[in-house]
Amino acid sequence: MAADLRGIDSHGVARLSGYVRLWEAKRVNASPAIKIIHETPSTAVVDGDSGLGLVVAPYAMQVAIDKAKLVGTGWVSVNNSNHFGIAGHHAMMALEHDMIGIAMTNASALVAPTFSIERMLGTNPICVAIPAGNEPAFVADLATTTAANGKLEILQRKNLHAPAGWIQDKDGNASTNPHELKGGGALLPLGGDRDHGSHKGYALGAVVDIFSAVLSGANYGPWVPPFPAYVPMPENQPGKGIGHFFGAMRIDAFRPASDFKLHMDQWIQRFRSAKTIQGQPSVLIPGDPEREAEAERRQNGIPLLNAVTKNLKELGERFDVAWKMSDV
Amino acid sequence: MAADLRGIDSHGVARLSGYVRLWEAKRVNASPAIKIIHETPSTAVVDGDSGLGLVVAPYAMQVAIDKAKLVGTGWVSVNNSNHFGIAGHHAMMALEHDMIGIAMTNASALVAPTFSIERMLGTNPICVAIPAGNEPAFVADLATTTAANGKLEILQRKNLHAPAGWIQDKDGNASTNPHELKGGGALLPLGGDRDHGSHKGYALGAVVDIFSAVLSGANYGPWVPPFPAYVPMPENQPGKGIGHFFGAMRIDAFRPASDFKLHMDQWIQRFRSAKTIQGQPSVLIPGDPEREAEAERRQNGIPLLNAVTKNLKELGERFDVAWKMSDV
Repeated sequence: MAADLRGIDSHGVARLSGYVRLWEAKRVNASPAIKIIHETPSTAVVDGDSGLGLVVAPYAMQVAIDKAKLVGTGWVSVNNSNHFGIAGHHAMMALEHDMIGIAMTNASALVAPTFSIERMLGTNPICVAIPAGNEPAFVADLATTTAANGKLEILQRKNLHAPAGWIQDKDGNASTNPHELKGGGALLPLGGDRDHGSHKGYALGAVVDIFSAVLSGANYGPWVPPFPAYVPMPENQPGKGIGHFFGAMRIDAFRPASDFKLHMDQWIQRFRSAKTIQGQPSVLIPGDPEREAEAERRQNGIPLLNAVTKNLKELGERFDVAWKMSDV
Repeated sequence: MAADLRGIDSHGVARLSGYVRLWEAKRVNASPAIKIIHETPSTAVVDGDSGLGLVVAPYAMQVAIDKAKLVGTGWVSVNNSNHFGIAGHHAMMALEHDMIGIAMTNASALVAPTFSIERMLGTNPICVAIPAGNEPAFVADLATTTAANGKLEILQRKNLHAPAGWIQDKDGNASTNPHELKGGGALLPLGGDRDHGSHKGYALGAVVDIFSAVLSGANYGPWVPPFPAYVPMPENQPGKGIGHFFGAMRIDAFRPASDFKLHMDQWIQRFRSAKTIQGQPSVLIPGDPEREAEAERRQNGIPLLNAVTKNLKELGERFDVAWKMSDV
């Protein structure tokens, strides 16, 4: 629901049937015994017991926040988890505690490293949420690819071309055909190609993979479990489930929160007022588009595709969940 | 010297005369009393007392390492500092302690946020250094721009064109003229333009700025002190000097270091063996090019431009520093 409110339809209730299929395939445990398996004053490793990431992630983020209360910061790496929805939702849990929140996750491999035709990394998003004073929080929530997979799915559905630099075909040629992924193509790391810094996007996605999975004992690289339940699991997996990584930093572990917020407000106001290119919109602060979507959708409701409402109805009937929806 | 060895000539001894000019302009304090001004078990803020970043950064990184020894991780934000050379050198201090090292810094504004013609951020690099076992360490050291300023300086010197997507002119038009920066143009955030994710590069550069300066009380955004001593300081600065941010995470605060290293070796070997695009080199692991440069230069020496050796000679004579250099 948080994803739909923030306008990230690809990660909202549209995923529910996919989660159910993972549960049917016994890849998601609906009543996980999530637990801390190792810890120090500022760190922990959490075993998600094959729970859905939507449930495991808030548990782990809360551990990070609790540790930050005690020693200034908390850092939690998670194994044995599944898809956790939008990174932003978990990172933003820190904001009400006057903390900076960080959330990242690995994901099944769709992205080819620079020079490669093989899919080795997921879209591996990073979110950093930073509180401000009178201004809304700064929330950078980004896939480490040129474009998130959700954007490509929209183009696939509408049969539109993708901008050059988003994808390559199975031989590594640049392509604008969003269906190329089904034929063995790959998404490209942020940067797109070597000349434009794709090695940096690759490195950032790799850091997410290592923090989320090599630190925790989850699967990494091409061994990450696929999201669709019908895709077989990779062989010889080196870990358990998918991995996440969370951080919480108490602002007043560095300086008084009130000082920090005054300067964050000044930071935000200065960037918002930066001179723009003629004909272009104002400079945005990370999180602006999602916040605006949420304000609008809280007012007017969340538009759902027919396929999604049909799906939700079927799930409701099947699991005997009473529900109603206006305008369906 | 570490920068020159690693092949990052733009950040090596070529900068020495610039540092001296900053000292002459009384912007660098040659005998700083660097101190911790606030701390918790896992965090600290360090005041660099206007010292050179090359001196302040190792002090602060050591504080992060010492805290990680005690509570698992250490996080240090620094104000009142100056240019710190290559981020990689400081982050890599963590490796010998079986820790992950993180280093970032803000820098004077050269980069226009998405939609803007104004220079608001520096090239704001991030380095993450991760130990491995038999394999060399993973060291991702990257400016949050399409291309580092050092690469542009090389094109300027040689009067060559830059690839599209590196720079824009003063009106925000795409440009391939590397001299455009002198005429009010700007470097572009990683991604290059909105379609290719420049808002992500902008967000990453912003996170570096906020962690380095808003957390510590240094200058941020367009108020960061310029590197050339002849450029006047921005007015109404909100903080002190430039800012850095360092982190150290003890591997065994998450899992036994020996397990982690086995899996890092497997991660590295799997990525190195990823199928490549026909005619392209093998997939690199972040840090490979710099490590290869260092191996070669330790063997054969560091080539210096004539202008740099001339400069070093003059500085040596001026400060009565005995020195000799073969082949000069």
